Amino acid sequence: MLYLVGLGLADETDITVRGLEVVKKAERVYLEAYTSILLVEKEKLEAFYGRPVTVADRELVESGSDDILANADKVDVAFLVVGDPFGATTHTDLVLRARELGIESKVIPNASIMSGIGCTGLQLYNFGQTVSMVFFTENWKPSSYYDRIKENLQFGLHTLVLLDIKVKEQSLENMARGRLIYEPPRYMTVAQCASQMLETEEERKEGIYGPDSLAIGAARVGASDQKLVAGTLQELSQVEMGRPLHSLVLLGRRAHDLERDYIRAFAVDKATFDASWQKGYGSS
Amino acid sequence: MLYLVGLGLADETDITVRGLEVVKKAERVYLEAYTSILLVEKEKLEAFYGRPVTVADRELVESGSDDILANADKVDVAFLVVGDPFGATTHTDLVLRARELGIESKVIPNASIMSGIGCTGLQLYNFGQTVSMVFFTENWKPSSYYDRIKENLQFGLHTLVLLDIKVKEQSLENMARGRLIYEPPRYMTVAQCASQMLETEEERKEGIYGPDSLAIGAARVGASDQKLVAGTLQELSQVEMGRPLHSLVLLGRRAHDLERDYIRAFAVDKATFDASWQKGYGSS
Repeated sequence: MLYLVGLGLADETDITVRGLEVVKKAERVYLEAYTSILLVEKEKLEAFYGRPVTVADRELVESGSDDILANADKVDVAFLVVGDPFGATTHTDLVLRARELGIESKVIPNASIMSGIGCTGLQLYNFGQTVSMVFFTENWKPSSYYDRIKENLQFGLHTLVLLDIKVKEQSLENMARGRLIYEPPRYMTVAQCASQMLETEEERKEGIYGPDSLAIGAARVGASDQKLVAGTLQELSQVEMGRPLHSLVLLGRRAHDLERDYIRAFAVDKATFDASWQKGYGSS
Repeated sequence: MLYLVGLGLADETDITVRGLEVVKKAERVYLEAYTSILLVEKEKLEAFYGRPVTVADRELVESGSDDILANADKVDVAFLVVGDPFGATTHTDLVLRARELGIESKVIPNASIMSGIGCTGLQLYNFGQTVSMVFFTENWKPSSYYDRIKENLQFGLHTLVLLDIKVKEQSLENMARGRLIYEPPRYMTVAQCASQMLETEEERKEGIYGPDSLAIGAARVGASDQKLVAGTLQELSQVEMGRPLHSLVLLGRRAHDLERDYIRAFAVDKATFDASWQKGYGSS
Protein backbone atom coordinates (compact mmCIF):
# COMPACT_ATOMS: atom_id res chain seq x y z
CA MET A 1 0.00 0.00 0.00
CA LEU A 2 1.19 3.52 -0.82
CA TYR A 3 0.27 5.96 1.93
CA LEU A 4 0.41 9.67 1.17
CA VAL A 5 0.65 11.24 4.59
CA GLY A 6 0.06 14.93 5.22
CA LEU A 7 2.43 16.39 7.82
CA GLY A 8 0.62 19.65 8.45
CA LEU A 9 2.31 23.00 8.51
CA ALA A 10 4.75 23.53 11.33
CA ASP A 11 6.57 20.80 13.23
CA GLU A 12 6.79 17.07 13.85
CA THR A 13 3.78 17.06 16.20
CA ASP A 14 1.44 18.31 13.48
CA ILE A 15 1.13 14.83 12.00
CA THR A 16 -2.18 13.17 12.85
CA VAL A 17 -2.36 10.24 15.25
CA ARG A 18 -3.43 8.04 12.33
CA GLY A 19 -0.63 9.36 10.16
CA LEU A 20 1.94 8.63 12.85
CA GLU A 21 0.71 5.03 13.19
CA VAL A 22 1.17 4.54 9.45
CA VAL A 23 4.68 6.03 9.43
CA LYS A 24 5.82 3.93 12.40
CA LYS A 25 4.79 0.74 10.60
CA ALA A 26 5.87 1.58 7.06
CA GLU A 27 8.68 -0.39 5.45
CA ARG A 28 10.06 2.73 3.74
CA VAL A 29 9.46 6.40 4.50
CA TYR A 30 10.01 9.23 1.96
CA LEU A 31 9.79 12.94 2.64
CA GLU A 32 8.84 15.23 -0.25
CA ALA A 33 11.02 18.26 0.36
CA TYR A 34 11.07 20.42 -2.74
CA THR A 35 7.66 22.09 -2.92
CA SER A 36 7.39 23.03 0.73
CA ILE A 37 9.30 22.63 3.96
CA LEU A 38 8.51 21.76 7.51
CA LEU A 39 10.05 24.02 10.12
CA VAL A 40 12.08 21.19 11.69
CA GLU A 41 15.07 19.13 10.58
CA LYS A 42 14.86 15.66 9.08
CA GLU A 43 16.72 14.21 12.08
CA LYS A 44 14.02 15.45 14.40
CA LEU A 45 11.39 13.73 12.29
CA GLU A 46 13.38 10.49 12.31
CA ALA A 47 13.70 10.57 16.09
CA PHE A 48 9.99 11.27 16.46
CA TYR A 49 8.96 8.50 14.06
CA GLY A 50 11.61 6.02 15.15
CA ARG A 51 12.21 5.35 11.45
CA PRO A 52 14.80 6.44 8.90
CA VAL A 53 13.48 9.00 6.41
CA THR A 54 14.65 9.33 2.80
CA VAL A 55 14.44 12.84 1.43
CA ALA A 56 12.76 12.74 -1.97
CA ASP A 57 13.83 15.56 -4.26
CA ARG A 58 12.04 16.58 -7.43
CA GLU A 59 14.13 14.23 -9.56
CA LEU A 60 13.30 11.19 -7.46
CA VAL A 61 9.57 11.94 -7.38
CA GLU A 62 9.24 12.89 -11.03
CA SER A 63 11.66 10.46 -12.68
CA GLY A 64 12.28 7.85 -10.03
CA SER A 65 8.75 7.22 -8.84
CA ASP A 66 9.08 3.53 -9.63
CA ASP A 67 11.82 3.31 -7.00
CA ILE A 68 9.47 4.83 -4.47
CA LEU A 69 6.73 2.43 -5.48
CA ALA A 70 8.95 -0.68 -5.66
CA ASN A 71 7.30 -3.59 -3.91
CA ALA A 72 4.48 -1.40 -2.60
CA ASP A 73 1.94 -4.02 -3.63
CA LYS A 74 3.38 -6.15 -0.82
CA VAL A 75 4.79 -3.72 1.77
CA ASP A 76 3.66 -0.35 3.09
CA VAL A 77 5.42 2.73 1.75
CA ALA A 78 4.79 6.13 3.35
CA PHE A 79 5.25 9.25 1.24
CA LEU A 80 5.23 12.28 3.52
CA VAL A 81 4.09 15.63 2.22
CA VAL A 82 4.26 18.93 4.09
CA GLY A 83 0.71 20.26 4.43
CA ASP A 84 -1.81 18.02 2.69
CA PRO A 85 -0.86 15.49 -0.03
CA PHE A 86 -3.47 16.99 -2.35
CA GLY A 87 -3.14 20.58 -1.17
CA ALA A 88 -1.04 23.31 -2.76
CA THR A 89 1.07 20.74 -4.59
CA THR A 90 -0.95 17.76 -5.61
CA HIS A 91 0.65 14.37 -5.96
CA THR A 92 -1.93 12.88 -8.26
CA ASP A 93 0.80 11.80 -10.70
CA LEU A 94 2.30 9.46 -8.10
CA VAL A 95 -1.13 7.99 -7.35
CA LEU A 96 -1.83 7.59 -11.07
CA ARG A 97 1.48 5.75 -11.51
CA ALA A 98 0.63 3.52 -8.54
CA ARG A 99 -2.75 2.74 -10.14
CA GLU A 100 -1.00 1.70 -13.36
CA LEU A 101 1.20 -0.67 -11.38
CA GLY A 102 -1.81 -2.12 -9.56
CA ILE A 103 -0.75 -0.60 -6.23
CA GLU A 104 -3.45 0.68 -3.90
CA SER A 105 -2.99 4.08 -2.30
CA LYS A 106 -4.49 5.86 0.68
CA VAL A 107 -4.32 9.49 1.68
CA ILE A 108 -4.02 10.76 5.26
CA PRO A 109 -5.21 14.38 5.05
CA ASN A 110 -3.82 17.23 7.10
CA ALA A 111 -3.86 21.00 7.31
CA SER A 112 -2.84 22.74 4.10
CA ILE A 113 -1.94 26.39 3.65
CA MET A 114 -4.99 26.49 1.34
CA SER A 115 -7.26 26.18 4.38
CA GLY A 116 -4.80 27.12 7.14
CA ILE A 117 -4.82 30.66 5.75
CA GLY A 118 -8.21 30.92 7.48
CA CYS A 119 -6.12 31.83 10.56
CA THR A 120 -6.08 35.35 9.13
CA GLY A 121 -9.75 35.56 10.08
CA LEU A 122 -10.73 35.92 6.44
CA GLN A 123 -13.61 33.67 5.38
CA LEU A 124 -12.46 30.91 3.07
CA TYR A 125 -15.78 31.30 1.24
CA ASN A 126 -14.63 34.73 0.11
CA PHE A 127 -11.49 33.50 -1.62
CA GLY A 128 -11.22 33.13 -5.37
CA GLN A 129 -8.57 31.07 -7.09
CA THR A 130 -5.12 30.73 -5.51
CA VAL A 131 -2.06 31.99 -7.35
CA SER A 132 1.69 31.42 -7.13
CA MET A 133 4.40 34.04 -7.16
CA VAL A 134 7.81 33.07 -8.48
CA PHE A 135 11.10 34.89 -7.92
CA PHE A 136 11.45 37.52 -10.63
CA THR A 137 14.78 37.70 -12.43
CA GLU A 138 16.06 40.53 -14.55
CA ASN A 139 14.58 39.07 -17.72
CA TRP A 140 11.78 36.91 -16.41
CA LYS A 141 8.88 38.51 -14.59
CA PRO A 142 5.88 36.33 -15.39
CA SER A 143 2.61 38.12 -14.75
CA SER A 144 -0.05 35.51 -15.47
CA TYR A 145 -0.86 35.63 -11.74
CA TYR A 146 -1.98 39.22 -12.32
CA ASP A 147 -4.73 38.03 -14.67
CA ARG A 148 -5.97 35.56 -12.05
CA ILE A 149 -6.02 38.29 -9.39
CA LYS A 150 -7.91 40.50 -11.80
CA GLU A 151 -10.56 37.80 -12.16
CA ASN A 152 -10.87 37.42 -8.39
CA LEU A 153 -11.05 41.15 -7.75
CA GLN A 154 -13.71 41.58 -10.40
CA PHE A 155 -16.02 39.66 -8.05
CA GLY A 156 -14.61 41.20 -4.89
CA LEU A 157 -12.82 38.02 -3.78
CA HIS A 158 -9.65 37.55 -1.75
CA THR A 159 -6.59 35.98 -3.36
CA LEU A 160 -4.15 33.69 -1.60
CA VAL A 161 -0.66 34.14 -3.05
CA LEU A 162 1.71 31.24 -2.45
CA LEU A 163 5.36 32.23 -2.46
CA ASP A 164 8.19 30.59 -4.34
CA ILE A 165 10.77 28.43 -2.68
CA LYS A 166 14.01 27.33 -4.30
CA VAL A 167 15.71 24.29 -2.89
CA LYS A 168 18.47 22.28 -4.51
CA GLU A 169 18.77 24.73 -7.40
CA GLN A 170 21.96 24.93 -9.45
CA SER A 171 23.47 28.15 -10.71
CA LEU A 172 23.45 28.48 -14.51
CA GLU A 173 27.21 28.08 -14.51
CA ASN A 174 27.20 24.93 -12.41
CA MET A 175 24.37 23.52 -14.49
CA ALA A 176 26.25 24.24 -17.72
CA ARG A 177 29.34 22.52 -16.39
CA GLY A 178 27.35 19.61 -15.02
CA ARG A 179 28.55 20.27 -11.48
CA LEU A 180 26.14 18.98 -8.83
CA ILE A 181 26.68 21.98 -6.60
CA TYR A 182 23.53 23.52 -5.21
CA GLU A 183 22.73 27.06 -4.19
CA PRO A 184 21.56 27.74 -0.63
CA PRO A 185 17.76 27.42 -0.35
CA ARG A 186 15.75 30.60 -0.88
CA TYR A 187 12.28 31.39 0.38
CA MET A 188 10.32 34.37 -0.85
CA THR A 189 9.30 36.85 1.82
CA VAL A 190 6.07 38.80 2.14
CA ALA A 191 8.04 41.98 1.40
CA GLN A 192 9.47 40.56 -1.83
CA CYS A 193 6.04 39.39 -2.91
CA ALA A 194 4.41 42.76 -2.25
CA SER A 195 7.23 44.52 -4.16
CA GLN A 196 6.89 42.21 -7.14
CA MET A 197 3.13 42.73 -7.17
CA LEU A 198 3.62 46.49 -7.31
CA GLU A 199 6.24 46.06 -10.02
CA THR A 200 3.78 44.08 -12.17
CA GLU A 201 1.06 46.69 -11.65
CA GLU A 202 3.49 49.40 -12.73
CA GLU A 203 4.24 47.46 -15.87
CA ARG A 204 0.71 46.34 -16.74
CA LYS A 205 -0.94 49.59 -15.60
CA GLU A 206 -4.47 48.14 -15.50
CA GLY A 207 -5.16 49.60 -12.07
CA ILE A 208 -6.15 46.23 -10.62
CA TYR A 209 -4.53 47.07 -7.31
CA GLY A 210 -2.05 49.61 -6.08
CA PRO A 211 0.23 50.73 -3.21
CA ASP A 212 -2.88 51.46 -1.05
CA SER A 213 -4.51 48.06 -1.58
CA LEU A 214 -4.88 46.08 1.61
CA ALA A 215 -3.22 42.73 2.09
CA ILE A 216 -2.22 40.39 4.86
CA GLY A 217 1.19 38.84 5.28
CA ALA A 218 1.27 35.49 7.05
CA ALA A 219 4.43 33.82 8.30
CA ARG A 220 4.77 30.31 9.73
CA VAL A 221 1.04 29.56 9.74
CA GLY A 222 0.22 27.06 12.46
CA ALA A 223 3.55 27.40 14.29
CA SER A 224 3.92 28.79 17.80
CA ASP A 225 5.63 31.87 16.35
CA GLN A 226 3.01 32.40 13.65
CA LYS A 227 2.91 36.04 12.62
CA LEU A 228 0.20 37.99 10.83
CA VAL A 229 0.54 41.54 9.53
CA ALA A 230 -2.17 43.59 7.81
CA GLY A 231 -1.38 46.66 5.79
CA THR A 232 -1.18 48.25 2.38
CA LEU A 233 0.99 46.63 -0.27
CA GLN A 234 3.31 49.61 0.15
CA GLU A 235 3.63 48.89 3.88
CA LEU A 236 4.00 45.15 3.37
CA SER A 237 6.79 45.71 0.84
CA GLN A 238 8.84 46.99 3.82
CA VAL A 239 7.74 44.52 6.48
CA GLU A 240 10.05 42.04 8.23
CA MET A 241 8.28 38.78 9.02
CA GLY A 242 11.14 36.52 10.11
CA ARG A 243 11.96 33.01 8.99
CA PRO A 244 9.98 31.11 6.30
CA LEU A 245 7.42 30.11 5.09
CA HIS A 246 5.50 33.22 4.13
CA SER A 247 2.22 33.72 2.28
CA LEU A 248 0.19 36.76 1.32
CA VAL A 249 -3.51 37.45 0.90
CA LEU A 250 -4.71 40.33 -1.25
CA LEU A 251 -8.04 41.54 0.09
CA GLY A 252 -11.17 41.64 -2.08
CA ARG A 253 -13.72 44.41 -1.66
CA ARG A 254 -16.38 41.88 -0.54
CA ALA A 255 -14.55 41.73 2.81
CA HIS A 256 -17.07 42.33 5.58
CA ASP A 257 -16.95 43.97 8.97
CA LEU A 258 -16.23 40.83 11.00
CA GLU A 259 -13.22 40.20 8.79
CA ARG A 260 -12.09 43.81 9.22
CA ASP A 261 -12.42 43.61 13.00
CA TYR A 262 -10.31 40.49 13.07
CA ILE A 263 -7.44 41.66 10.84
CA ARG A 264 -7.32 45.24 12.08
CA ALA A 265 -5.62 43.90 15.22
CA PHE A 266 -2.61 42.98 13.06
CA ALA A 267 -2.40 46.29 11.22
CA VAL A 268 1.06 47.79 10.70
CA ASP A 269 -0.59 51.17 11.16
CA LYS A 270 -4.25 51.40 12.16
CA ALA A 271 -4.67 54.85 10.61
CA THR A 272 -3.54 53.85 7.11
CA PHE A 273 -5.48 50.61 7.49
CA ASP A 274 -8.71 52.46 8.27
CA ALA A 275 -8.11 54.97 5.48
CA SER A 276 -7.54 52.26 2.90
CA TRP A 277 -10.50 50.26 4.16
CA GLN A 278 -12.81 53.27 3.81
CA LYS A 279 -11.75 53.80 0.24
CA GLY A 280 -12.32 50.40 -1.18
CA TYR A 281 -13.69 47.63 1.02
CA GLY A 282 -16.79 46.42 2.77
CA SER A 283 -19.12 46.62 -0.22
CA SER A 284 -20.58 43.47 -1.66
CA MET B 1 -5.58 29.94 27.16
CA LEU B 2 -8.31 29.15 24.65
CA TYR B 3 -7.24 26.43 22.23
CA LEU B 4 -9.24 25.96 19.05
CA VAL B 5 -8.36 22.44 18.01
CA GLY B 6 -9.12 21.05 14.55
CA LEU B 7 -10.22 17.41 14.62
CA GLY B 8 -9.86 16.66 10.94
CA LEU B 9 -12.48 14.93 8.86
CA ALA B 10 -13.17 11.34 9.79
CA ASP B 11 -12.50 9.75 13.16
CA GLU B 12 -10.82 10.23 16.55
CA THR B 13 -7.35 9.41 15.19
CA ASP B 14 -7.43 12.36 12.77
CA ILE B 15 -6.51 14.77 15.55
CA THR B 16 -2.87 15.87 15.38
CA VAL B 17 -0.35 14.71 17.97
CA ARG B 18 -0.08 18.31 19.17
CA GLY B 19 -3.85 18.68 19.32
CA LEU B 20 -4.18 15.50 21.37
CA GLU B 21 -1.60 16.76 23.88
CA VAL B 22 -3.62 19.94 24.32
CA VAL B 23 -6.91 18.10 24.80
CA LYS B 24 -5.46 15.66 27.34
CA LYS B 25 -4.25 18.56 29.49
CA ALA B 26 -7.19 20.96 29.11
CA GLU B 27 -9.36 21.78 32.11
CA ARG B 28 -12.53 21.81 30.01
CA VAL B 29 -13.19 20.33 26.57
CA TYR B 30 -16.02 21.46 24.26
CA LEU B 31 -17.03 19.89 20.97
CA GLU B 32 -18.67 22.12 18.37
CA ALA B 33 -21.27 19.81 16.86
CA TYR B 34 -23.73 21.84 14.83
CA THR B 35 -21.88 22.89 11.69
CA SER B 36 -20.26 19.56 10.93
CA ILE B 37 -19.95 16.11 12.43
CA LEU B 38 -17.21 13.61 12.98
CA LEU B 39 -18.01 10.07 11.93
CA VAL B 40 -17.64 8.72 15.49
CA GLU B 41 -19.65 9.05 18.70
CA LYS B 42 -18.82 11.45 21.51
CA GLU B 43 -18.16 8.52 23.85
CA LYS B 44 -15.45 7.25 21.56
CA LEU B 45 -13.77 10.65 21.64
CA GLU B 46 -13.96 10.76 25.42
CA ALA B 47 -12.37 7.32 25.73
CA PHE B 48 -9.62 8.32 23.30
CA TYR B 49 -8.89 11.64 25.06
CA GLY B 50 -9.36 10.32 28.59
CA ARG B 51 -11.40 13.48 29.23
CA PRO B 52 -15.11 14.31 29.44
CA VAL B 53 -16.37 16.27 26.44
CA THR B 54 -19.20 18.82 26.52
CA VAL B 55 -21.16 19.06 23.30
CA ALA B 56 -21.52 22.72 22.36
CA ASP B 57 -24.63 23.42 20.32
CA ARG B 58 -25.26 26.61 18.38
CA GLU B 59 -26.96 28.28 21.32
CA LEU B 60 -24.03 27.70 23.67
CA VAL B 61 -21.46 28.93 21.16
CA GLU B 62 -23.41 31.96 19.98
CA SER B 63 -25.07 33.12 23.20
CA GLY B 64 -23.15 31.33 25.93
CA SER B 65 -19.60 31.93 24.77
CA ASP B 66 -18.73 33.55 28.08
CA ASP B 67 -19.45 30.22 29.79
CA ILE B 68 -17.01 28.54 27.43
CA LEU B 69 -14.43 31.24 28.10
CA ALA B 70 -14.95 31.39 31.87
CA ASN B 71 -11.63 31.38 33.67
CA ALA B 72 -9.71 30.76 30.44
CA ASP B 73 -7.21 33.45 31.40
CA LYS B 74 -6.06 31.04 34.11
CA VAL B 75 -6.83 27.53 32.87
CA ASP B 76 -6.70 25.86 29.45
CA VAL B 77 -9.96 25.42 27.58
CA ALA B 78 -10.08 23.30 24.42
CA PHE B 79 -12.76 24.04 21.83
CA LEU B 80 -12.83 21.18 19.34
CA VAL B 81 -13.97 21.80 15.79
CA VAL B 82 -14.52 19.16 13.13
CA GLY B 83 -12.18 19.91 10.23
CA ASP B 84 -10.21 23.11 10.82
CA PRO B 85 -11.25 25.81 13.32
CA PHE B 86 -11.03 28.45 10.58
CA GLY B 87 -12.15 26.25 7.71
CA ALA B 88 -15.65 25.96 6.29
CA THR B 89 -17.14 27.43 9.46
CA THR B 90 -14.90 30.01 10.98
CA HIS B 91 -14.90 30.65 14.69
CA THR B 92 -13.46 34.13 14.57
CA ASP B 93 -16.32 35.45 16.74
CA LEU B 94 -15.21 33.26 19.65
CA VAL B 95 -11.62 34.44 19.26
CA LEU B 96 -12.77 38.08 19.05
CA ARG B 97 -14.77 37.63 22.26
CA ALA B 98 -11.74 36.06 23.94
CA ARG B 99 -9.63 39.04 22.83
CA GLU B 100 -12.14 41.42 24.43
CA LEU B 101 -11.88 39.48 27.68
CA GLY B 102 -8.08 39.56 27.55
CA ILE B 103 -7.83 35.82 26.94
CA GLU B 104 -5.14 34.52 24.61
CA SER B 105 -6.09 31.97 21.99
CA LYS B 106 -4.18 29.47 19.88
CA VAL B 107 -5.29 27.48 16.87
CA ILE B 108 -4.26 23.89 16.13
CA PRO B 109 -4.94 23.51 12.40
CA ASN B 110 -6.14 20.34 10.75
CA ALA B 111 -7.54 19.08 7.48
CA SER B 112 -10.63 20.92 6.28
CA ILE B 113 -13.01 19.88 3.55
CA MET B 114 -11.89 23.11 1.80
CA SER B 115 -8.51 21.49 1.12
CA GLY B 116 -9.41 17.81 1.68
CA ILE B 117 -11.53 17.99 -1.47
CA GLY B 118 -8.18 17.81 -3.28
CA CYS B 119 -8.61 14.03 -2.84
CA THR B 120 -10.77 14.21 -5.97
CA GLY B 121 -7.58 14.82 -7.92
CA LEU B 122 -8.79 18.27 -8.93
CA GLN B 123 -6.20 21.02 -8.47
CA LEU B 124 -7.11 23.36 -5.63
CA TYR B 125 -5.63 26.19 -7.74
CA ASN B 126 -8.47 25.69 -10.20
CA PHE B 127 -11.25 26.26 -7.67
CA GLY B 128 -13.17 29.49 -7.43
CA GLN B 129 -15.21 30.50 -4.41
CA THR B 130 -16.91 27.82 -2.32
CA VAL B 131 -20.71 27.80 -2.01
CA SER B 132 -23.22 26.24 0.39
CA MET B 133 -26.38 24.39 -0.56
CA VAL B 134 -29.26 24.42 1.91
CA PHE B 135 -32.22 22.06 2.00
CA PHE B 136 -34.92 23.50 -0.26
CA THR B 137 -38.45 23.62 1.12
CA GLU B 138 -41.64 24.10 -0.82
CA ASN B 139 -41.50 27.87 -0.46
CA TRP B 140 -37.81 28.54 0.10
CA LYS B 141 -35.33 27.69 -2.63
CA PRO B 142 -32.54 30.24 -2.28
CA SER B 143 -30.44 30.51 -5.43
CA SER B 144 -27.72 32.99 -4.52
CA TYR B 145 -25.28 30.07 -4.79
CA TYR B 146 -26.18 29.98 -8.50
CA ASP B 147 -24.76 33.47 -8.97
CA ARG B 148 -21.51 32.44 -7.31
CA ILE B 149 -21.25 29.35 -9.53
CA LYS B 150 -21.90 31.57 -12.53
CA GLU B 151 -18.95 33.75 -11.53
CA ASN B 152 -16.68 30.72 -11.14
CA LEU B 153 -17.76 29.15 -14.43
CA GLN B 154 -17.21 32.42 -16.26
CA PHE B 155 -13.49 31.89 -15.62
CA GLY B 156 -13.63 28.12 -16.06
CA LEU B 157 -13.13 27.36 -12.38
CA HIS B 158 -14.36 24.44 -10.28
CA THR B 159 -16.87 25.04 -7.48
CA LEU B 160 -16.93 23.17 -4.20
CA VAL B 161 -20.49 22.88 -2.93
CA LEU B 162 -20.83 22.23 0.80
CA LEU B 163 -24.04 20.48 1.77
CA ASP B 164 -26.48 21.42 4.48
CA ILE B 165 -26.74 19.54 7.75
CA LYS B 166 -29.61 19.93 10.20
CA VAL B 167 -28.96 18.91 13.76
CA LYS B 168 -31.06 19.76 16.78
CA GLU B 169 -33.75 21.41 14.64
CA GLN B 170 -37.30 21.81 15.95
CA SER B 171 -40.40 21.32 13.82
CA LEU B 172 -42.42 24.52 13.33
CA GLU B 173 -45.12 23.06 15.54
CA ASN B 174 -42.78 22.19 18.39
CA MET B 175 -41.09 25.57 18.10
CA ALA B 176 -44.44 27.38 18.23
CA ARG B 177 -45.44 25.43 21.34
CA GLY B 178 -42.05 25.91 22.94
CA ARG B 179 -41.43 22.17 23.14
CA LEU B 180 -37.75 21.26 23.22
CA ILE B 181 -38.27 18.25 20.99
CA TYR B 182 -35.78 17.91 18.18
CA GLU B 183 -36.09 16.33 14.78
CA PRO B 184 -33.69 13.55 13.80
CA PRO B 185 -30.53 14.96 12.20
CA ARG B 186 -30.56 15.31 8.41
CA TYR B 187 -27.59 15.44 6.09
CA MET B 188 -27.92 16.43 2.46
CA THR B 189 -26.81 13.81 -0.04
CA VAL B 190 -24.96 14.30 -3.32
CA ALA B 191 -28.13 13.18 -5.14
CA GLN B 192 -30.26 15.82 -3.39
CA CYS B 193 -27.70 18.52 -4.14
CA ALA B 194 -27.49 17.61 -7.83
CA SER B 195 -31.31 17.59 -8.06
CA GLN B 196 -31.60 20.99 -6.40
CA MET B 197 -28.94 22.41 -8.71
CA LEU B 198 -30.92 21.22 -11.74
CA GLU B 199 -34.10 22.63 -10.21
CA THR B 200 -32.49 26.06 -9.85
CA GLU B 201 -31.21 25.97 -13.43
CA GLU B 202 -34.72 25.12 -14.64
CA GLU B 203 -36.07 28.09 -12.77
CA ARG B 204 -33.34 30.60 -13.61
CA LYS B 205 -32.82 29.35 -17.17
CA GLU B 206 -29.49 31.13 -17.66
CA GLY B 207 -27.84 28.02 -19.07
CA ILE B 208 -25.00 28.15 -16.55
CA TYR B 209 -24.90 24.38 -16.29
CA GLY B 210 -27.25 21.56 -17.19
CA PRO B 211 -28.00 17.84 -16.85
CA ASP B 212 -24.86 17.02 -18.91
CA SER B 213 -22.50 19.13 -16.81
CA LEU B 214 -19.81 17.10 -15.08
CA ALA B 215 -19.49 16.98 -11.33
CA ILE B 216 -17.91 14.85 -8.65
CA GLY B 217 -19.69 13.54 -5.60
CA ALA B 218 -17.48 12.97 -2.55
CA ALA B 219 -18.60 11.08 0.54
CA ARG B 220 -16.74 10.75 3.83
CA VAL B 221 -13.57 12.46 2.62
CA GLY B 222 -10.57 11.19 4.54
CA ALA B 223 -12.35 8.15 6.01
CA SER B 224 -11.44 4.56 5.19
CA ASP B 225 -14.72 4.21 3.29
CA GLN B 226 -14.30 7.47 1.38
CA LYS B 227 -16.20 7.31 -1.89
CA LEU B 228 -15.82 9.40 -5.03
CA VAL B 229 -18.16 9.34 -8.01
CA ALA B 230 -17.79 11.34 -11.23
CA GLY B 231 -20.65 11.88 -13.61
CA THR B 232 -23.14 14.28 -15.10
CA LEU B 233 -25.46 16.17 -12.76
CA GLN B 234 -28.23 13.99 -14.15
CA GLU B 235 -26.32 10.84 -13.17
CA LEU B 236 -25.35 12.22 -9.77
CA SER B 237 -28.98 13.09 -9.01
CA GLN B 238 -29.57 9.31 -8.94
CA VAL B 239 -26.40 8.18 -7.20
CA GLU B 240 -26.29 6.44 -3.80
CA MET B 241 -23.23 7.45 -1.79
CA GLY B 242 -23.96 5.98 1.64
CA ARG B 243 -23.71 7.66 5.02
CA PRO B 244 -22.75 11.36 5.52
CA LEU B 245 -20.99 13.72 5.06
CA HIS B 246 -21.26 14.42 1.36
CA SER B 247 -19.87 17.22 -0.83
CA LEU B 248 -20.04 17.99 -4.52
CA VAL B 249 -17.70 19.66 -6.99
CA LEU B 250 -19.03 21.17 -10.19
CA LEU B 251 -16.31 21.02 -12.82
CA GLY B 252 -15.05 24.15 -14.57
CA ARG B 253 -14.00 24.03 -18.20
CA ARG B 254 -10.39 24.87 -17.31
CA ALA B 255 -10.04 21.28 -16.06
CA HIS B 256 -6.99 19.74 -17.67
CA ASP B 257 -6.05 16.28 -18.84
CA LEU B 258 -4.31 15.14 -15.65
CA GLU B 259 -7.47 16.01 -13.72
CA ARG B 260 -9.57 14.14 -16.26
CA ASP B 261 -7.35 11.03 -16.06
CA TYR B 262 -7.67 11.04 -12.29
CA ILE B 263 -11.43 11.44 -12.00
CA ARG B 264 -12.38 9.27 -14.98
CA ALA B 265 -11.57 6.25 -12.80
CA PHE B 266 -14.57 7.18 -10.61
CA ALA B 267 -17.00 7.71 -13.49
CA VAL B 268 -20.52 6.31 -13.10
CA ASP B 269 -20.40 5.60 -16.83
CA LYS B 270 -17.20 6.16 -18.78
CA ALA B 271 -19.06 6.66 -22.07
CA THR B 272 -21.26 9.51 -20.83
CA PHE B 273 -18.27 10.95 -18.97
CA ASP B 274 -16.16 11.05 -22.13
CA ALA B 275 -19.03 12.47 -24.18
CA SER B 276 -19.65 15.28 -21.68
CA TRP B 277 -15.94 15.98 -21.35
CA GLN B 278 -15.57 16.32 -25.14
CA LYS B 279 -18.38 18.83 -25.27
CA GLY B 280 -17.28 21.30 -22.68
CA TYR B 281 -14.01 20.76 -20.83
CA GLY B 282 -10.27 20.86 -21.22
CA SER B 283 -10.07 24.33 -22.76
CA SER B 284 -8.39 27.13 -20.87
